[in-house]
Amino acid sequence: MRAEGIRALTFDTFGTVVDWRSSIIDDFFAFGKSKGLDIDWAAFVDDWKTAYQPGMDAVRTGKWPWTTVDGIYRIKLDELLPKYGLERLNESERMHLNRVWHRLNPWPDAVAGLTRLKRKYVISPLSNGDVSCLANMAKHGGLPWDVILCAEIFRHYKPDPEVYLGAIQLLGCKPHEVMMVAAHNYDLRAARSHGMRTAFVARPTEYGPGQKTDLKAEEDWDIVARDFSELATALGA
Amino acid sequence: MRAEGIRALTFDTFGTVVDWRSSIIDDFFAFGKSKGLDIDWAAFVDDWKTAYQPGMDAVRTGKWPWTTVDGIYRIKLDELLPKYGLERLNESERMHLNRVWHRLNPWPDAVAGLTRLKRKYVISPLSNGDVSCLANMAKHGGLPWDVILCAEIFRHYKPDPEVYLGAIQLLGCKPHEVMMVAAHNYDLRAARSHGMRTAFVARPTEYGPGQKTDLKAEEDWDIVARDFSELATALGA
Repeated sequence: MRAEGIRALTFDTFGTVVDWRSSIIDDFFAFGKSKGLDIDWAAFVDDWKTAYQPGMDAVRTGKWPWTTVDGIYRIKLDELLPKYGLERLNESERMHLNRVWHRLNPWPDAVAGLTRLKRKYVISPLSNGDVSCLANMAKHGGLPWDVILCAEIFRHYKPDPEVYLGAIQLLGCKPHEVMMVAAHNYDLRAARSHGMRTAFVARPTEYGPGQKTDLKAEEDWDIVARDFSELATALGA
Repeated sequence: MRAEGIRALTFDTFGTVVDWRSSIIDDFFAFGKSKGLDIDWAAFVDDWKTAYQPGMDAVRTGKWPWTTVDGIYRIKLDELLPKYGLERLNESERMHLNRVWHRLNPWPDAVAGLTRLKRKYVISPLSNGDVSCLANMAKHGGLPWDVILCAEIFRHYKPDPEVYLGAIQLLGCKPHEVMMVAAHNYDLRAARSHGMRTAFVARPTEYGPGQKTDLKAEEDWDIVARDFSELATALGA
């Protein structure tokens, strides 16, 4: 097995561990219902999500100072509300909506798989999300992380090298002792370029029913697993 | 209660959560026995521990580049071995000894108290130890941290302000929403100066039977508890 000698596993989180899209749609639907609002929340969420890449790019190129993902989404939320007739939402409602990223639900196999893997490895997110978001999400969903590593600690977003190299260093490991687990090929490509091991777990409905990207492993990753249960088995956990 | 509105608790770890001195003496005694060595391990450990403050000071003043606590202790270990007739220990034995800080045992009340507190608060170490040390120690002793925050993340040692302010920021809290828990008055003094809440838990045998410092709360900390069980009760957990 190409995964021998591994001591720690780092997980992409949004999409790989938690089902952000369905979670947000369900959460906002319940919010809308409680307020008597009739909104196409799926469209809203897909619109909202478009802020992610440009926001990180603005940070990466120095156009923006360091801005957390919570901050990036908040800017976009405020922009988006009028388009959906929601400009009257007050600050406390906006904060509640923006914190939905702290309330995401794990994919059905995630907690059981992580719990098995934790017995044998140090497990950590390696996410572009913020520390408090990942900590609150772990409490919400029962994710048994040993450590929380993410962009906010390194003030760089994946796939910047600083994130992977920073995680390897803080874990006290050599690159080949850490395995990156992700549902996104770009993330594994970056991890492999720094000497990390790689595991791909497809999440073909992360972006909804019409998803066209990351439907399968695009390289010979060290492990390709259907879910975290198969991953745990492949890693002898 | 002066602790109202608290969302997260940060814990000094060496001395407050784990009994480093007894743990190391026991660990080294077992190591010595397996090698047929007759050493005064208590004296060895007390000697070794003297490296801590000067090592951090060397980093703080810029005399040394950033050096982890594992690194500080390793330098001192290599210096100290000849004094105890242990200069023949090889690299793997030295690494084993130096990693004893990853194998420390919690005080008897720590795990049960943290487990109660975790249900209501985000709990994290805020230690001068390294991320991998704290993660391995948590696995070794069953410490149920939500997050691991420490000097290595901020590249500053307590009581530098960067550590407390950095933790407050990464926890996504306001200063008064975070409570520092420590067996050391200096740590609480620094935390309070940045607006954090404070809880003192005395550990009168941390430094062995002759301990003369930190035997009691030296200021009117928000909570003074005998152990983590009393702390959890005081915090309604």
